[in-house]
Amino acid sequence: MSEAEDFTRVAHAAREAAAELAPLPRAPKDAALRAVADALVARAKEIVEANALDIEAARASGTAETMIDRLRLDEKRVESIAVAVREVADLPDPVGEVVRGSTLPNGLELRQIRVPLGVVGIIYEGRPNVTVDAAALCLKSGNAVLLRGSSSAYRSNTVLVEVMRDALRGTEVPADAVQLVPGATRESVKHLMRARGLVDVLIPRGGASLINTVVEESTVPVIETGVGNCHVYVDADADLDLALEILVNAKVQRPSVCNAAETFLVHAAVADAFVPAALARLAAEGVTVHGDERVAAYGDHVVPAGDQDYRDEYLSLDIAAAVVDSLEDAVAHIRRYGSAHTDAIVTRSQRAARRFVSLVDSAAVAVNASTRFTDGGEFGFGAEIGISTQKLHARGPMGLPELTSTKWVYIGEGHLRTSTGTVIAGDVE
Amino acid sequence: MSEAEDFTRVAHAAREAAAELAPLPRAPKDAALRAVADALVARAKEIVEANALDIEAARASGTAETMIDRLRLDEKRVESIAVAVREVADLPDPVGEVVRGSTLPNGLELRQIRVPLGVVGIIYEGRPNVTVDAAALCLKSGNAVLLRGSSSAYRSNTVLVEVMRDALRGTEVPADAVQLVPGATRESVKHLMRARGLVDVLIPRGGASLINTVVEESTVPVIETGVGNCHVYVDADADLDLALEILVNAKVQRPSVCNAAETFLVHAAVADAFVPAALARLAAEGVTVHGDERVAAYGDHVVPAGDQDYRDEYLSLDIAAAVVDSLEDAVAHIRRYGSAHTDAIVTRSQRAARRFVSLVDSAAVAVNASTRFTDGGEFGFGAEIGISTQKLHARGPMGLPELTSTKWVYIGEGHLRTSTGTVIAGDVE
Repeated sequence: MSEAEDFTRVAHAAREAAAELAPLPRAPKDAALRAVADALVARAKEIVEANALDIEAARASGTAETMIDRLRLDEKRVESIAVAVREVADLPDPVGEVVRGSTLPNGLELRQIRVPLGVVGIIYEGRPNVTVDAAALCLKSGNAVLLRGSSSAYRSNTVLVEVMRDALRGTEVPADAVQLVPGATRESVKHLMRARGLVDVLIPRGGASLINTVVEESTVPVIETGVGNCHVYVDADADLDLALEILVNAKVQRPSVCNAAETFLVHAAVADAFVPAALARLAAEGVTVHGDERVAAYGDHVVPAGDQDYRDEYLSLDIAAAVVDSLEDAVAHIRRYGSAHTDAIVTRSQRAARRFVSLVDSAAVAVNASTRFTDGGEFGFGAEIGISTQKLHARGPMGLPELTSTKWVYIGEGHLRTSTGTVIAGDVE
Repeated sequence: MSEAEDFTRVAHAAREAAAELAPLPRAPKDAALRAVADALVARAKEIVEANALDIEAARASGTAETMIDRLRLDEKRVESIAVAVREVADLPDPVGEVVRGSTLPNGLELRQIRVPLGVVGIIYEGRPNVTVDAAALCLKSGNAVLLRGSSSAYRSNTVLVEVMRDALRGTEVPADAVQLVPGATRESVKHLMRARGLVDVLIPRGGASLINTVVEESTVPVIETGVGNCHVYVDADADLDLALEILVNAKVQRPSVCNAAETFLVHAAVADAFVPAALARLAAEGVTVHGDERVAAYGDHVVPAGDQDYRDEYLSLDIAAAVVDSLEDAVAHIRRYGSAHTDAIVTRSQRAARRFVSLVDSAAVAVNASTRFTDGGEFGFGAEIGISTQKLHARGPMGLPELTSTKWVYIGEGHLRTSTGTVIAGDVE
């Protein structure tokens, strides 16, 4: 059977499983998730063995040790993956929630009810824990999932999916609700992207180039996640000590993540006071500053910044910087170069904060806080499937409700619509 | 200047206007809409004259009179378009609504706030009143709009947009927030579909082929609207008199709209009693029934139905029909052939109603009511931009809130994230 046929078979099976899974109430879904968690722990050895083969192959092909560490699973890590699955089981079920409801003037009872999306496709890179995390979130929200992880983790993912499916066989959740996209080829991504009608939404999690490819080529609706070119703007009215702590935290606390700061902008009125202190502190923290001429005037170690520096995510101990003449210029810079993830202002001025919040068109806007707080865990969602930087459907951290759609239900007793209003045909006995 | 350059200029102008319009509160937006309504009435003669040229051209090219009637504007119709604009002004402003909000355990004040989408592209056919209705809904929800109407209404649309833009010049809403896509060529639709980054969402309103083209080719996110292959299922436990009234109303009351019924399914247990009565009544109403063999067994005038009959929207006095052996078979038929718009069950059984609502995966599910009630006006939205049949972002009738996104705002006093929790850097004076 060709890979394309394999894919179609798997996608159809997921679609049927989704129809079976959608009407299930919470209890059987939670029981299934707990069975998955138990199986992961019970079969940890098998998982670690498969993972060792991935690691061996990665090492043989000269993969960097930091990447290999991301790929590695040991029994302790498998254990913590299982804990995360149990935490998802403990979260409230979004399905069935009545989002809005009323009795219409004509007596129709109208309700808008949360329902699963159907089949969710996840395309991701790196860590094999995503395989289980994503599957757990999809199952909990009543969705079937098609998983397409990185080819370097294909052996690990294959076993993880096998363990999950085996565990589901003893539950009310159909095993086919969790599927690995067959093959780890580039073609297998294409099958997913062209599966309109079989797959309801694609969520690419990874770098900008993966996401752009999916957005350009997919006929399945896409939710973009994860690219974060976040800014910290130090306003003319900022408490400069606070500004420095926020800037350093946003850049340094975890540079490899999407909510880390990649650029700071300083109002000209406080540049003399702020920029030298920032350059010294960032240097001490091991951060390279890529600045415009106005920033470079304050220090010898500033690397000249070009357009691309303002545009890219470094995801490293690098940061771009510029001096701006006004809050409006800061906003214009953010609109031009930003990725609409998270942008922060540091200011004591209520007016400046209000204006920045109103003008910056990003998924999250922070006032006197580090950009690092844009996170499903921090927001209290319990878990997140990613951080959406698009405007449709979901924006910002995506929890379980963002993995659902809604359905309108209206109940009458023979309600007919006429040109002048509603007529009731008769009474239901 | 080429049409492509023209388009880019217009789209950039819309984008800038959107940034200006987004932070405006309700009052200036309402004032602008009222100015638009006044201008439409004041310049009705000009509009009707331009429309007469479209009608003349349509007639010369042999357009059917029913289509010409859809195209026609007279002073009375212009007046009622202006009334609709005033009604939009009277609706509550969705922008700024706090959708969720809390103080996090670490003291961050978190709010999720409704914001405009940005630039909305509307591709539509037929009636020129959509030009004004869509513009009014977009402006009210803080969005700029790029309008691409049918080429047959290009002269009417050009003058309508001119009148709206002139009226906006005296208001706080930038005139560039309303734009007609230059040219009425097929290319002009392509420009819209490829304008990712300039246009935030495309809403095609029209037939299935237009919508499919846009979905397949657009890199801009799309909201599908308007294709309605709606079903009425007559359950074994139905009140058959009620079922007949609902079926006739759903089919006949306005056959050309998307929430009209296109297929009815009858449980085998009541087929003997229901189908002959339905065939007689539908014939009396001038409806042609396209049925399977089991339906045909009850009457001479049943046209044999093929797969395509079950799949298509007739939008005419035709209806497909089939006898099914169970509620589950009815659901399977709807899943297979339906467009996930609105499907109705007629039943006295609470259990059957519950099961049908749970299993049918459509934007709206009606119980003992005509499918014709799936409508923004009937649902109390005041106005609608269309009826979404997709699952992402909006499903069912789309009112003003569906033309918005959200933004997360969090406010701290020096909140830093550390590996062990939150640390406050200092106090804002």
